[in-house]
Amino acid sequence: MVIARASIASRLREILPPDRVIDDETTLLPYAYDASFWSLRKRRLPDVVVVPDSGAEVASVVRVAAETGTPIVARGAGTGQTGGAVAARGGIVVSFARMRRVLEIDRTDLQVVAEPGVVFADLTAALAPFGLFFPPDPGSGRACTIGGMVANNASGPHAVKWGTTSAYVLGAEVVLADGSVIVTGGERSKALKSSSGIDLTKLFVGSEGTLGILTRLRLRAQPRPPARAVVLAAYEDLDDTVRTIDDLFAAGILPATAELLDRTAVEALMKWRPDLGLPTGEAVLFVEVEGTRASVSSSVSEVEDIVKKRAQVTQRAEEEAAIQRLWQARGGLAAASSLVFPGKHRIFAGEDLSVPISEIPRAIRRAREIGAETRTSVIFYGHFGDGNVHSAIVIDPTDADQVRRADELADRLHRLALEVGGTVTGEHGTGAVRQRYMALEHGAAYEVMKRIKATLDPHGIMNPGKLFEAAD
Amino acid sequence: MVIARASIASRLREILPPDRVIDDETTLLPYAYDASFWSLRKRRLPDVVVVPDSGAEVASVVRVAAETGTPIVARGAGTGQTGGAVAARGGIVVSFARMRRVLEIDRTDLQVVAEPGVVFADLTAALAPFGLFFPPDPGSGRACTIGGMVANNASGPHAVKWGTTSAYVLGAEVVLADGSVIVTGGERSKALKSSSGIDLTKLFVGSEGTLGILTRLRLRAQPRPPARAVVLAAYEDLDDTVRTIDDLFAAGILPATAELLDRTAVEALMKWRPDLGLPTGEAVLFVEVEGTRASVSSSVSEVEDIVKKRAQVTQRAEEEAAIQRLWQARGGLAAASSLVFPGKHRIFAGEDLSVPISEIPRAIRRAREIGAETRTSVIFYGHFGDGNVHSAIVIDPTDADQVRRADELADRLHRLALEVGGTVTGEHGTGAVRQRYMALEHGAAYEVMKRIKATLDPHGIMNPGKLFEAAD
Repeated sequence: MVIARASIASRLREILPPDRVIDDETTLLPYAYDASFWSLRKRRLPDVVVVPDSGAEVASVVRVAAETGTPIVARGAGTGQTGGAVAARGGIVVSFARMRRVLEIDRTDLQVVAEPGVVFADLTAALAPFGLFFPPDPGSGRACTIGGMVANNASGPHAVKWGTTSAYVLGAEVVLADGSVIVTGGERSKALKSSSGIDLTKLFVGSEGTLGILTRLRLRAQPRPPARAVVLAAYEDLDDTVRTIDDLFAAGILPATAELLDRTAVEALMKWRPDLGLPTGEAVLFVEVEGTRASVSSSVSEVEDIVKKRAQVTQRAEEEAAIQRLWQARGGLAAASSLVFPGKHRIFAGEDLSVPISEIPRAIRRAREIGAETRTSVIFYGHFGDGNVHSAIVIDPTDADQVRRADELADRLHRLALEVGGTVTGEHGTGAVRQRYMALEHGAAYEVMKRIKATLDPHGIMNPGKLFEAAD
Repeated sequence: MVIARASIASRLREILPPDRVIDDETTLLPYAYDASFWSLRKRRLPDVVVVPDSGAEVASVVRVAAETGTPIVARGAGTGQTGGAVAARGGIVVSFARMRRVLEIDRTDLQVVAEPGVVFADLTAALAPFGLFFPPDPGSGRACTIGGMVANNASGPHAVKWGTTSAYVLGAEVVLADGSVIVTGGERSKALKSSSGIDLTKLFVGSEGTLGILTRLRLRAQPRPPARAVVLAAYEDLDDTVRTIDDLFAAGILPATAELLDRTAVEALMKWRPDLGLPTGEAVLFVEVEGTRASVSSSVSEVEDIVKKRAQVTQRAEEEAAIQRLWQARGGLAAASSLVFPGKHRIFAGEDLSVPISEIPRAIRRAREIGAETRTSVIFYGHFGDGNVHSAIVIDPTDADQVRRADELADRLHRLALEVGGTVTGEHGTGAVRQRYMALEHGAAYEVMKRIKATLDPHGIMNPGKLFEAAD
């Protein structure tokens, strides 16, 4: 392996400047991990990390991988929670750290062209002066890259109204497994919609680097609504949260977000940020509406009137500063969870159930029982309006028995999601950690996925050990 | 061929009741056509039409096709404009006339399960009592089927805000080329979003029956906004329409629709329906906003204030009856066009350019010149807010010289769309008529499309002569 590594690295140094080909073990170390608990349990070093500067350089690197049969794995910020950016079988990691340019922003045509290494927060900042935004808003948005978001079909609270990343990818430059390059969505297109050919773009979205490597993205941006307001509502009965969301739908209102915090999440947040004065109850809903200033001030009243019918308490936040404080608090939930359970940490495992909205109460109640049965602490929160329930498992990861019980809990949570008509992952992806559920979730369709994989990557070099086959 | 036909038909009568296997030439005749001019020019009879009642029956029919190497083509209402539902190489047409059941509507979970033969208007009517709607709204909505919409990734005026059909397909039962059946989007899933596996659903959306036949659809429905209002604006300068739409974007407003009628379209409509009192100008924009009653009444004022800055005239329609009258008129444009050109008919050929919004004025001006150069009448209208410009070519189809010139015009319009950074089809599909532009539009990506086709349909029986290969 050491010989192979040296030989691949020297091949790569023929096509990239030597300082952009990394193969000393100390520098390789961070690339062995992402945010998944899976990656923390066993060190998986790549053989080489390359830091290309252009799509052409990525293509050259892929050609070396193809010629030598070396696994190749694309990596953005490494914030993923499924091991997607970790080289499960060694080989080459392609870092997009240098490919973080926003190449074009065009307001009239509602689109932006960007390299995959652009950080979501940087894209947001670049779009702001144009009055535009990129709607999918993952919790890791301050660090994660657009390429990673596209690879995982990421989303976040605003997917309720705006949908997931998939809806905003108009086209992409993709390096295929043989090092050839295609452009999906029309070679020279800036069209906002198309029914031309079959939709290769959406095949690559969410394929986690297993079918090709994205090197340039053509994205749809949206005009940013100038105003928003939040209604916070506390409930004693979890079922009433579903009734409220249905009341809103019945009134023809699709809120921008409908976030859910269960009692444990509210408690965690209140320990961390008592200044927020969150209402308490069995569950808290966090309903945001957006629009022009005048339209928001009327729609927030309509929403509050509807929510009041079933909630014990409602509060309204209309000042932007107050709204931002709420969202920052919501974003700090992972950090807050360790305050409730001193000496423990949140691990990412079984954390991304997505179930039918109507099944959320039953799923959470059953998940709490499983938590009790496995004697493991879990905090529930999530994007209620699209059924995405995050379960934050909190353990001492140095305690083997706690780890064993967390493994059991995570496994049962995945199966629970499928039992109630959901999916094992709403927005985080399959990666290494959820491959084992693919046959159960997709049945015969999983075999079709594998046929497409075999067609586009016949030698299995693109991110092996993920999605299509077990990692270990 | 007659022998083959009789033999296939008798095989099919072993698996379907005899009256649902059609092979007499008179009854087959309507199946030789769709709305495309291509289909009207040469009669392409299928050998057999079957009218299955279930996905299982469709699968049995596909197995017969697979065993005998017979082409098989799915057909909804036959309203398509590309020859997609016509058996270019004979064989079996699968009619969905009996598979028009809405199987489940669930408001809380925002979804509906339907058979592909459900007519769009019937789906709309079925959803209305729940306060839901299915946003993509093709012009043929009174007749076209949901299956056809999914197969072509159809859309309509409201795609500006709501996106195309692709965004609303959560999963599908699909019969593959060997007659096996898969369910995409999770075998038992009712989840609203998922990052599990690769996205097979969106691969089948827009694939026009060339990769598999859809037999059940799981669709996302949306809460229907209870109110809407329209601002009509007339312009003397086509470029000002783009400036207005950019003004709206800059104000953070994404309207529900931004329809464009050029001078010829307004003239046609005014001959047909003088009672509408449309404003006249070089172009008319038709901007709709939606929301709750209170929010619409404020947002329509904001929109009108912005539109007024550049438009010569603005009018507002806030009463639902008046708005419906406008939309009905807009829907009658094809009929109206023959009033302007007595003795001529609109043909569907080169009618679905989609270009960057900023390029619409240039594209229309250039298209008018090409119309003049080919001495052929064209009316322009379309979904301005997403760049989709429909060009209604109006000729006497019995006049060979007019037909020849229309062919030249259609060809040049397709090439014009690509020259200005657009696509040859925004929402109508590729079918038989646009296959010739695929390599030009998609370059090397077209070869990848073909590789996926070969994987899923190795013997080329699924709707041959479309999208991947020339029809004749």
